[in-house]
Amino acid sequence: MAPRRYSDPVHRIITLDREEPSDRLLMALIDAPEVQRLRRIRQLGLAFVAFQGAEHSRFAHSLGVMHTMTLALDALQRSGVALEAEVRLCARAAALLHDLGHGPFSHVMEKVLGQRHEDWTARILLSPETAVHRILAAHEPTLPERLAHLMAGAFQPRFVAQLVASQLDCDRFDYLLRDSLMTGVSYGCYDLPWILNALAVDAATGQLIVRARGVLAVEEYLFARYHMFRRVYFHHALRAAENMLVAMFRRAVALAAAGSLVFRLPESAMDKLLTTRPLTPLEYLSLDDADVLFHIKQWQREPDPTLSDLARRFLERRLFKSLDVSDLAPEQRADLRAAIADALLAHGLAPECYLLEDDAGDVPYFGPYAPDAPDRRIVVEEGRANPRLREISEVSAAVAGLRPYRLHRLCFPEEARAAAQQAHQRLAQT
Amino acid sequence: MAPRRYSDPVHRIITLDREEPSDRLLMALIDAPEVQRLRRIRQLGLAFVAFQGAEHSRFAHSLGVMHTMTLALDALQRSGVALEAEVRLCARAAALLHDLGHGPFSHVMEKVLGQRHEDWTARILLSPETAVHRILAAHEPTLPERLAHLMAGAFQPRFVAQLVASQLDCDRFDYLLRDSLMTGVSYGCYDLPWILNALAVDAATGQLIVRARGVLAVEEYLFARYHMFRRVYFHHALRAAENMLVAMFRRAVALAAAGSLVFRLPESAMDKLLTTRPLTPLEYLSLDDADVLFHIKQWQREPDPTLSDLARRFLERRLFKSLDVSDLAPEQRADLRAAIADALLAHGLAPECYLLEDDAGDVPYFGPYAPDAPDRRIVVEEGRANPRLREISEVSAAVAGLRPYRLHRLCFPEEARAAAQQAHQRLAQT
Amino acid sequence: MAPRRYSDPVHRIITLDREEPSDRLLMALIDAPEVQRLRRIRQLGLAFVAFQGAEHSRFAHSLGVMHTMTLALDALQRSGVALEAEVRLCARAAALLHDLGHGPFSHVMEKVLGQRHEDWTARILLSPETAVHRILAAHEPTLPERLAHLMAGAFQPRFVAQLVASQLDCDRFDYLLRDSLMTGVSYGCYDLPWILNALAVDAATGQLIVRARGVLAVEEYLFARYHMFRRVYFHHALRAAENMLVAMFRRAVALAAAGSLVFRLPESAMDKLLTTRPLTPLEYLSLDDADVLFHIKQWQREPDPTLSDLARRFLERRLFKSLDVSDLAPEQRADLRAAIADALLAHGLAPECYLLEDDAGDVPYFGPYAPDAPDRRIVVEEGRANPRLREISEVSAAVAGLRPYRLHRLCFPEEARAAAQQAHQRLAQT
Amino acid sequence: MAPRRYSDPVHRIITLDREEPSDRLLMALIDAPEVQRLRRIRQLGLAFVAFQGAEHSRFAHSLGVMHTMTLALDALQRSGVALEAEVRLCARAAALLHDLGHGPFSHVMEKVLGQRHEDWTARILLSPETAVHRILAAHEPTLPERLAHLMAGAFQPRFVAQLVASQLDCDRFDYLLRDSLMTGVSYGCYDLPWILNALAVDAATGQLIVRARGVLAVEEYLFARYHMFRRVYFHHALRAAENMLVAMFRRAVALAAAGSLVFRLPESAMDKLLTTRPLTPLEYLSLDDADVLFHIKQWQREPDPTLSDLARRFLERRLFKSLDVSDLAPEQRADLRAAIADALLAHGLAPECYLLEDDAGDVPYFGPYAPDAPDRRIVVEEGRANPRLREISEVSAAVAGLRPYRLHRLCFPEEARAAAQQAHQRLAQT
Repeated sequence: MAPRRYSDPVHRIITLDREEPSDRLLMALIDAPEVQRLRRIRQLGLAFVAFQGAEHSRFAHSLGVMHTMTLALDALQRSGVALEAEVRLCARAAALLHDLGHGPFSHVMEKVLGQRHEDWTARILLSPETAVHRILAAHEPTLPERLAHLMAGAFQPRFVAQLVASQLDCDRFDYLLRDSLMTGVSYGCYDLPWILNALAVDAATGQLIVRARGVLAVEEYLFARYHMFRRVYFHHALRAAENMLVAMFRRAVALAAAGSLVFRLPESAMDKLLTTRPLTPLEYLSLDDADVLFHIKQWQREPDPTLSDLARRFLERRLFKSLDVSDLAPEQRADLRAAIADALLAHGLAPECYLLEDDAGDVPYFGPYAPDAPDRRIVVEEGRANPRLREISEVSAAVAGLRPYRLHRLCFPEEARAAAQQAHQRLAQT
Repeated sequence: MAPRRYSDPVHRIITLDREEPSDRLLMALIDAPEVQRLRRIRQLGLAFVAFQGAEHSRFAHSLGVMHTMTLALDALQRSGVALEAEVRLCARAAALLHDLGHGPFSHVMEKVLGQRHEDWTARILLSPETAVHRILAAHEPTLPERLAHLMAGAFQPRFVAQLVASQLDCDRFDYLLRDSLMTGVSYGCYDLPWILNALAVDAATGQLIVRARGVLAVEEYLFARYHMFRRVYFHHALRAAENMLVAMFRRAVALAAAGSLVFRLPESAMDKLLTTRPLTPLEYLSLDDADVLFHIKQWQREPDPTLSDLARRFLERRLFKSLDVSDLAPEQRADLRAAIADALLAHGLAPECYLLEDDAGDVPYFGPYAPDAPDRRIVVEEGRANPRLREISEVSAAVAGLRPYRLHRLCFPEEARAAAQQAHQRLAQT
Repeated sequence: MAPRRYSDPVHRIITLDREEPSDRLLMALIDAPEVQRLRRIRQLGLAFVAFQGAEHSRFAHSLGVMHTMTLALDALQRSGVALEAEVRLCARAAALLHDLGHGPFSHVMEKVLGQRHEDWTARILLSPETAVHRILAAHEPTLPERLAHLMAGAFQPRFVAQLVASQLDCDRFDYLLRDSLMTGVSYGCYDLPWILNALAVDAATGQLIVRARGVLAVEEYLFARYHMFRRVYFHHALRAAENMLVAMFRRAVALAAAGSLVFRLPESAMDKLLTTRPLTPLEYLSLDDADVLFHIKQWQREPDPTLSDLARRFLERRLFKSLDVSDLAPEQRADLRAAIADALLAHGLAPECYLLEDDAGDVPYFGPYAPDAPDRRIVVEEGRANPRLREISEVSAAVAGLRPYRLHRLCFPEEARAAAQQAHQRLAQT
Repeated sequence: MAPRRYSDPVHRIITLDREEPSDRLLMALIDAPEVQRLRRIRQLGLAFVAFQGAEHSRFAHSLGVMHTMTLALDALQRSGVALEAEVRLCARAAALLHDLGHGPFSHVMEKVLGQRHEDWTARILLSPETAVHRILAAHEPTLPERLAHLMAGAFQPRFVAQLVASQLDCDRFDYLLRDSLMTGVSYGCYDLPWILNALAVDAATGQLIVRARGVLAVEEYLFARYHMFRRVYFHHALRAAENMLVAMFRRAVALAAAGSLVFRLPESAMDKLLTTRPLTPLEYLSLDDADVLFHIKQWQREPDPTLSDLARRFLERRLFKSLDVSDLAPEQRADLRAAIADALLAHGLAPECYLLEDDAGDVPYFGPYAPDAPDRRIVVEEGRANPRLREISEVSAAVAGLRPYRLHRLCFPEEARAAAQQAHQRLAQT
């Protein structure tokens, strides 16, 4: 029987064998409603407001991670690493399913929902109500639990857990290439085949290591990720849109609490979410980007002027402006906030809804910054004659130069821009 | 002032000059809600069911067409074609706005709505209620009407109208490259810069022509389009999903007429659409992919078993199977339909909702097939010494080989697959 | 032991396993001087005069063909075709070695040498003096002969011979992609993975066939090849340079015969070539692009004014102009030749050296044009219910439209251009 | 008249206008024999031994630099920088001609010739014997001298000199993209359009600066260059081949001095080079890759066993092995050298010809390491409200982490490998 094929902009063809048992299980999982739902969740949340090509879904990414995991395991097996069939299957299934728990617009709604997507992923895997759970359990009753452990990092062999979630994992392998292609920028490119061919397993510890020949490719990969964060994931317009979405939801929740939110579908998952009642996994899974967009569209007609105004600004892409205040001292920031608040009030806009704080930061590489988390470190061989294992930032000055950073920005509507800039310039000169 | 820049997966950077008057007008148009709405309409409708990367929006395409038009006009001007600033602006604006009238999922809803997107585009341009109209009219009162004429092909100089809509237009220039990249297939690639550099204008007729050096590149472009239709736009899964969506809407309309459709937001645009009342331009513009998806999600819980079943199949991507019956005679098709209908009835599925006809066809190149439409033909120079103008299929045997074709398929649920295949094999052997 | 890796612009990484016996044999072959020599032979001959990026070597292409063969065999094996290890090795070795017999600048010197590169390949394989022969024979004494048979098409199973040399072979798979990338044009792109995944073997005849799902991809591939011939391989400047090179060699041979060629290295392979004595395989193998270029450089200082003038024109890229006379009747061509000859004589240039005929043609697809050569035809499945095997041009109107063609051009120096154009225009009007 | 077009793998189409005077001058320069000669000089010297695609020529690169300069000047002019036509022409001509002085295999022969290619470029420009000089002087008598000054950095406005040669110049813009594509690695990719759109000129100093929006793209570009050096330009096989070539030439020079070099063409440029007599510019220009390759091929038959052996190893790609000794102390290196010398002598190989030192290093970014060379520094804007000009390493921790480095390696034949590794392991453990 002909294999099943997925055409993919990043990997070109992803193939599954209809006659091979693990591939058949993976196909059943892909066809499960919980995985198909990921087609309706954008991988990069609201990034499309800044990069019009960034409309790709979590589904495409999830297949890509599964495929990259297959490539990584193939490379390791070719270089002599022994791997039981069942472990191989766990790794590929975990790669496919690791993003099951994402809510609408991926990371955006986590702030509103107050629960991490990783927790939802685990709940979905373990809930007997989901098709994914039933398919896994039918294959082997402990499989849902094993996958949940694997995703949480508690798994043997350790290198498999690292390929699922670490600083050198298949999730990142795929998303850098995919997000780079879709946003039209080149910074996410790096040499994946070369890294895969340099992966190995340390016999002593069971940990993933990188052969000396792959160190520069890993350096390049870390810089690709660093540049993607700086130039794409933390893009000011994208962050402004995300903050606006969060502000809108907070306003809707407040209105719902006060009994003055007009549009709602009683007993729907969105209704429970807006009234801060807990969601069951199936309710959570019923939510996707379309629900959020549809509600925002209805909110344009809410009687509350703040909610309807925010909804219209959002849909018409009249985004808040962003001001980087990383260089200001705390008291200066307070001054600036006050100046902006005054300008907002002069336009009849409530600062608590229209002046948003954006706090974004990343640790491009944890090595020296998380010395107590050995599985998160990237371990490489140094030297070819008598190779020694070292943490990569000890070997590479460039990686050691990758320091954690934070960006602080204020977001506010166009109406306050002139006042904000004046105040900022005044403060920056002092 | 720094130019405004759009990062794009196809063209990399699209730049507009904030200090140049026509660019400023184009920026105002891009920022209009009617253009921003195109971010919420997928360029390829439901193609994502077959090509998981095909999530790109009409907005990205529209910017791409505007950009390609700019490149084409630049090339013509470099090669000596005179162009008034106002005509240049019309061409670029028409390129940007030509898809304004698309409904949810692009072409899909045309079948439901019963009105062509080109007509909606004209209505939107001419309606004083739209921001796009107001921006254009403020620039020059007759501009909306001129653009509507231009899009309809009634414009001088003729080559500008041809660049907007013909068999060698900027719309196709962009969509082939974009759809090819996003679907992960290579067939849409062709040599755009080479075609642009071979464009010229025939002094006698004002028509667009292609210099002899560009003929092979145009051949290649026509084959790129032909292959994209065959392998992407007419993909069986995509067509099955589209037919399912249309069937669902027809069912919902029937239920609404019978007063038994439960979910509806009274007086919404969707409500009017489902009760077949005419929509105003603003109502039409309020519709996008999210509305359709949201309604289908609600329909999963409709009491009507057909509508709720179709909705669930659609959302969980349990698509109808497709059987190519192009090779069967009419009476054989009737036999086959009867056999499938029987199988459906045996599963309690009503054939009028579950047995769908899919009729798809294209004329890859109209030249010899529309001899009375001179502006649709591609005219090229033959020979370099004394170049003569010829219609391209007279010069290229390969293009002459591109004949119109039609595909006939039947779509039905998995439940009827075995019966359908048996009947098909039996008929194919006779 | 880490695999050996080749970094490649087309395939990215080509990997060979140092511990796998067939891969070890392939590595030994790659390291043989006869294969390393291919690094000094440009894949596209003189194409670099028209496409400055086209400097790639036969060596890179040969590795690419070997790699593509590996991918094709993997795909066939995955889809259930049984393949003995020894047959697999033959196929990969033949792919690697199929171009051994190319002389300087690939096809160019065939005209001068009067012997086809395929014959040289066979002689090199069978000659006990070559390292390649010794390596193969050490592995298995009949291997050189089996490979020679395989390359000549006399091999069982037939599909392996077809993958080595047919109209759908690994040679073309690689060169289209490679030449397209290196020349900077896009016409050579097609969907290789999709074709590979659609390959199969007809159980009845042992022939290669293409599943119905791959027919459109093969169509696209045939058009890619057709466009590469028309726009790259038959580019007028490239053909003019090739004709100049041949004319130069003919002149040098004539001078050598007359005892008046000054520069020569006695008893070198070039000396024998210029005095039309037969070359042994080792002598032939000692020739590469550098010899030809070095001799042309010396010829700039020959006393014979024609040879020195041609050499200087060639090196300074003052190429002959090209006039397409395909549209002229035989007597018109004679008229034109006479007019150009007069103009050349008026500049003191001998027409027999300065007026060159270029006759180029191709059969884009042989199917209907070689009905008696079944192994050259591309056989595809038609229909999915009861697939039948058909020759592709019977199924595809587009392929049926790909007809054989010939181009006739005259090449001559700039000095005769005006006269030639005038005469051509005069003749074209009659 | 149709523009002249160059098809290019990196930039796709490079266009020159046959009717525009500066473009006409550039075309005349491109057609000059000195520029055409660059087609016969490989851009990356011997890199093809490690990256089989790296056969591209200096000619393709030179056109690419000219094109990139045009793009950079266009971008600056679009953003308001005033530029006289004559200055613009100088910049583009300098970009085209900056590599005129390269000898065979680019950088490799500099070591043999003992003169920098930049000096040769200046001599060629200023020599009235060259076509390039005559074409420039005919346009404007001082033009050759102005270009020589421009390439040496002595030119006003300063930003033009910086675009020609600095750490952010058009040479690097092109070579990173080109070498990356041709070697099949991805590390040379960076976002050129984004950098070009962020370039500006500081009104106070006339220096090139980068707007704040471009800082991350410049960071990425610096890392691209760093990775290309580490993984491509300093590749061990490439360096071994280069060292072998230099050793061969030194041996040939020694033999020529002793009167025992058999193959030579009396009074040729190569003959003068091998007898260490000075070359005139025209003699120097007569040399290219083919001369070197041809001589090495003849040297295979020299009576001197060392020269003939080295030549055969080189041509058959039996490259010296490379051992990284960066981590050894000076006395340890001496020990290691002694052990290798012993092993070589045991195989009858003279250590002075067979034990080669390879010393490679780079300063990835000079900023903090050349504080007294202001024009070499990359100056960027920091902050958007009140932008200040800063040297980039003060703004970017990542760039500050890019430190100078040196690699020390020993190169020697396979015969000494085992002994070398043993000694190295022994020393590494102490």
